[in-house]
Amino acid sequence: MNDLEGLARLIRYYSLVSTTEAGSGHPTSSLSAADLMTGLMFGGTFRYDLDEPSHPNNDRLIFSKGHASPLFYALWAAAGKVSEEELLTLRKFGSPLEGHPTPEFRYTEAATGSLGQGLSIGVGMALNAKYLDKLPYRTCVLLGDSEMAEGSVWEAMELAAWYKLNNLIGIVDVNRLGQRGETMYGHDLSVYKNRISAFGWETIVIDGHHLPQVQTAFEQAARATDRPVMIIAKTLKGKGVSFIEDKNGWHGKALKKEELKRALEELGPVNRELRGAIPQPEDMIASVVPSHIAAPLSYRSDKAVSPRYAYGTALERLFPQFPEMVVLDAEVSNSTYSEIFRNRFPDRFFEMFIAEQNMAGAALGISLRGRIPFVSTFAAFLTRAADQIRMSQYSNGNIKFCGSHAGVSIGEDGSSQMGLEDIALFRAILGSVVLYPSDAVSTERLGGEMAWHSGIVYLRTTRKDLPVLYRNDEAFWIGGSKVLRSSKKDVATVVAAGITLHEALRAYDELKKENILIRVIDLYSVKPVDVATLRRAAIETGVIITVEDHFAEGGIADAVRTALSKQPVPVHALAIRAMPKSGKPDELLDYEGISWKSIVEAVKRAKS
Amino acid sequence: MNDLEGLARLIRYYSLVSTTEAGSGHPTSSLSAADLMTGLMFGGTFRYDLDEPSHPNNDRLIFSKGHASPLFYALWAAAGKVSEEELLTLRKFGSPLEGHPTPEFRYTEAATGSLGQGLSIGVGMALNAKYLDKLPYRTCVLLGDSEMAEGSVWEAMELAAWYKLNNLIGIVDVNRLGQRGETMYGHDLSVYKNRISAFGWETIVIDGHHLPQVQTAFEQAARATDRPVMIIAKTLKGKGVSFIEDKNGWHGKALKKEELKRALEELGPVNRELRGAIPQPEDMIASVVPSHIAAPLSYRSDKAVSPRYAYGTALERLFPQFPEMVVLDAEVSNSTYSEIFRNRFPDRFFEMFIAEQNMAGAALGISLRGRIPFVSTFAAFLTRAADQIRMSQYSNGNIKFCGSHAGVSIGEDGSSQMGLEDIALFRAILGSVVLYPSDAVSTERLGGEMAWHSGIVYLRTTRKDLPVLYRNDEAFWIGGSKVLRSSKKDVATVVAAGITLHEALRAYDELKKENILIRVIDLYSVKPVDVATLRRAAIETGVIITVEDHFAEGGIADAVRTALSKQPVPVHALAIRAMPKSGKPDELLDYEGISWKSIVEAVKRAKS
Repeated sequence: MNDLEGLARLIRYYSLVSTTEAGSGHPTSSLSAADLMTGLMFGGTFRYDLDEPSHPNNDRLIFSKGHASPLFYALWAAAGKVSEEELLTLRKFGSPLEGHPTPEFRYTEAATGSLGQGLSIGVGMALNAKYLDKLPYRTCVLLGDSEMAEGSVWEAMELAAWYKLNNLIGIVDVNRLGQRGETMYGHDLSVYKNRISAFGWETIVIDGHHLPQVQTAFEQAARATDRPVMIIAKTLKGKGVSFIEDKNGWHGKALKKEELKRALEELGPVNRELRGAIPQPEDMIASVVPSHIAAPLSYRSDKAVSPRYAYGTALERLFPQFPEMVVLDAEVSNSTYSEIFRNRFPDRFFEMFIAEQNMAGAALGISLRGRIPFVSTFAAFLTRAADQIRMSQYSNGNIKFCGSHAGVSIGEDGSSQMGLEDIALFRAILGSVVLYPSDAVSTERLGGEMAWHSGIVYLRTTRKDLPVLYRNDEAFWIGGSKVLRSSKKDVATVVAAGITLHEALRAYDELKKENILIRVIDLYSVKPVDVATLRRAAIETGVIITVEDHFAEGGIADAVRTALSKQPVPVHALAIRAMPKSGKPDELLDYEGISWKSIVEAVKRAKS
Repeated sequence: MNDLEGLARLIRYYSLVSTTEAGSGHPTSSLSAADLMTGLMFGGTFRYDLDEPSHPNNDRLIFSKGHASPLFYALWAAAGKVSEEELLTLRKFGSPLEGHPTPEFRYTEAATGSLGQGLSIGVGMALNAKYLDKLPYRTCVLLGDSEMAEGSVWEAMELAAWYKLNNLIGIVDVNRLGQRGETMYGHDLSVYKNRISAFGWETIVIDGHHLPQVQTAFEQAARATDRPVMIIAKTLKGKGVSFIEDKNGWHGKALKKEELKRALEELGPVNRELRGAIPQPEDMIASVVPSHIAAPLSYRSDKAVSPRYAYGTALERLFPQFPEMVVLDAEVSNSTYSEIFRNRFPDRFFEMFIAEQNMAGAALGISLRGRIPFVSTFAAFLTRAADQIRMSQYSNGNIKFCGSHAGVSIGEDGSSQMGLEDIALFRAILGSVVLYPSDAVSTERLGGEMAWHSGIVYLRTTRKDLPVLYRNDEAFWIGGSKVLRSSKKDVATVVAAGITLHEALRAYDELKKENILIRVIDLYSVKPVDVATLRRAAIETGVIITVEDHFAEGGIADAVRTALSKQPVPVHALAIRAMPKSGKPDELLDYEGISWKSIVEAVKRAKS
């Protein structure tokens, strides 16, 4: 039996000392949750193999209130896995103990610091445990009361209840104070209890500084059978140090050296040799499914297929080869065509309803447990999860996003449904891959490349049926491109992808009638981009025209200009520049100046 | 007294006929809400001057479920303001009757179609009515049951209750069926009632097809005194046409001509001459506050000031000149420094708590009622509202966003808090303005330019204190730049903004010691960009080096290359390319290769 009181005091001590040494950080937000987390980690419920953070059956602990990182690191120090010396590197350049937890620290499950995201990540891990791994590990998420204002928390809440995630435990640290003052509800715990209950969770309300209550709450939570459990704890920010306790104006402030001295005197004697024990997890692993080669393609060259449909068939076809695949969709699987996969492999599909933020967060959680989530909705609606996508890069997420309904070519539904900034969004993610196929074969092949590649990949699919351009055995790869038309007499290069590639090919035919030859490049890999092919085209044809069904900023034109930075040539960008509206796809391509007619004009203008 | 039954039948008729004519659209989603909306618009509660959509005291009607646009247009047709001929242009190119409502249609309050956003827009309008205009108009928002899964709805809900918006009426059309099947809760209205009540709203549960119940519900809602009211209505998708009523598989499908014929037979005789009357609004307008010239600046050249702090002082200074200003912040006003404004003008400040989506949506609503909202949070957390920002461009929103804590130079807090993709996000908004000041004077001046300019403007501020570079009377404008160092012997041009401008000036000094001269440009207006100055620098110096505390994609480098598209020169981009981490600001600038040292190296490399 651990000395919980002593451990809590030690953990407070570490939280205070490390932040004062750093000169910044969040000691008060750490102190409010110190007893809660001591009770969780050392109270007997939490199971973890400290020597093997990757153990598949470790319980998971996510600090959604990532600014309480001093507490997070102090916990592992109290478990004997972070030295006092290492603790004092908090927030210093090169230290794994960053200002908010990142995977640089070996016990971090997921990077946090953008509030309201941790519960979604936990949902992903709990979904994986219950429905995929079928392992008895639990996922615990520490939330702050301020972040309960984020809608994403309630998305996670509703979905966790829907999927009956009795292996998910949330802990709300209701310390009353946000960054700039009191939260909406202060210490009125009934508001949290009523809302969380109404969202289908079991709730346990406790005094978050009463260790026996904390311990009992976790024991009760561990016995949940059909619902997730939220422990709602009344706490005091800065608890344990009188001059900061429950006081406004102390958010995100480290104590000065003199203040620390006073604080430590109040804290009383600390046993710095004390270490808490944590029970080992059960020694179980998930069953491994063997991998088989995916079936070959058999598209007919005379039958048009939409890339979005090919995405659906690719998912179904690739699953035997990539048995770690999981598919998530935000209630539009009959539009993205992920329903093709769902109908075939319903156990590997999660309906995430219209809640894109939670879908992205849960996908991160699933990926961090070793699966390959494929996540689809309309390209436009992936912007809803931009912050979750942003944060997933800091967790080394391995997520495959598919945005359907790219561009004005969706037609009559109008601007709100058109993905016109999705390439810009995904290009600006560190190390991301952005793919944009133009027919069924390239969509299928790039689907396979996505699955192989580890990291954040975005696939942009088109709504409209498009002719099949490629042979069924054609190869595509990340960073590649295809030169579809080329001669020694090319007067310009047209770079396109997706629907505009078909316009470029039509422009080629029209121009050829006038004896004007152009090079046509399928830039199916927008990031990384095929620099060598673009450079060669630039040198040989002298001018480049890009055509994209995307706003003028952040898309294909920017990618091409970047590729040509060292030896630039003029790049004329045809892109969406007029307010998009409803209409037939072809009318809209004309209206926006990205149809074959505009390409023909642009070539002639560039030539003259 | 209107013939509500007859009007509802007419509105159903219009919804069916117009979608069949269009060949696409959402008739079933229109039919479920037809009685609700007939009861609202023609039941006597709703007040509207049909000849003056801009009347300041009209009640506002927002279709958050924007796909029910056929119903929306049919309502105004039944009011006599859309002809049958115009109705039949639905979804056609050039028609104001787009697939989802946009401002092209004169009775649209706000563009919708990305689900879950309408209630936030309504919150903005209701805040304006209650606290700013102090007018008795009401704001009504029609929501679908599927979109209740969006977290943004619950953000709007909590804030509306917090601000006691008794002038806000929501209507949830619980028709049980989403796009690809049943919603999470089907027809279990108690789930909605419990959740919405727990979020502090008055709830009224009704049969949404029983017109007297509908009418009574709106009358009751209009009498609310201290809380917003949600009418939760049990409805049937496709109500009134047996073969589509309450049937799955009919989302977003227009009836074929033969099906329409059968449907109209079922509907029975329709009086196409029938028109509904709507009572006039009260003839009140908000009081107008006179405008005064803002105070002059008085920054000292020897005292460093952070641009984020100057943003706060700019808000306070500019308010007398722009009395329509309203300031919103997401619980970080002591970091963005919007608290300077709040402390001085608390009546013009709204605390939006940590719910960025709702903040952006509410700002749109406020702007659409003629105010100038300034909206601030950390730049990184504006990505949380990317979809709301995207949608605001389609409503012709006039919103001033300020993102503080730009880049790795924030230091110890680490990657999660660093805005590194914010320029990419805002550049990809049609007609947007992106400003990035480097000192207190330019921040203040650009604050004024933002207020003048109508549209979506983004201001990026820096956390760190930075020397004052400019004289207090220096002018800055949208689309401008400043050439800070220039000579006939410049071997390269360094283009920078914000913190990197100071690094560029240091690099200038260092290089000058070696008799190497460079041009230094402050690109404070990233979009639109000063093409003439950049071109001239390109021609005169032959090479450009961009330096930005932002990821390499979508930011300053892309903006500069775009400006030079016609007459390109090599552009070397120094930007964030390594995984960001915690550390001291200067350590991180060095680590990422955007400090003066890297600029010096880049100049020498480019020269050789």
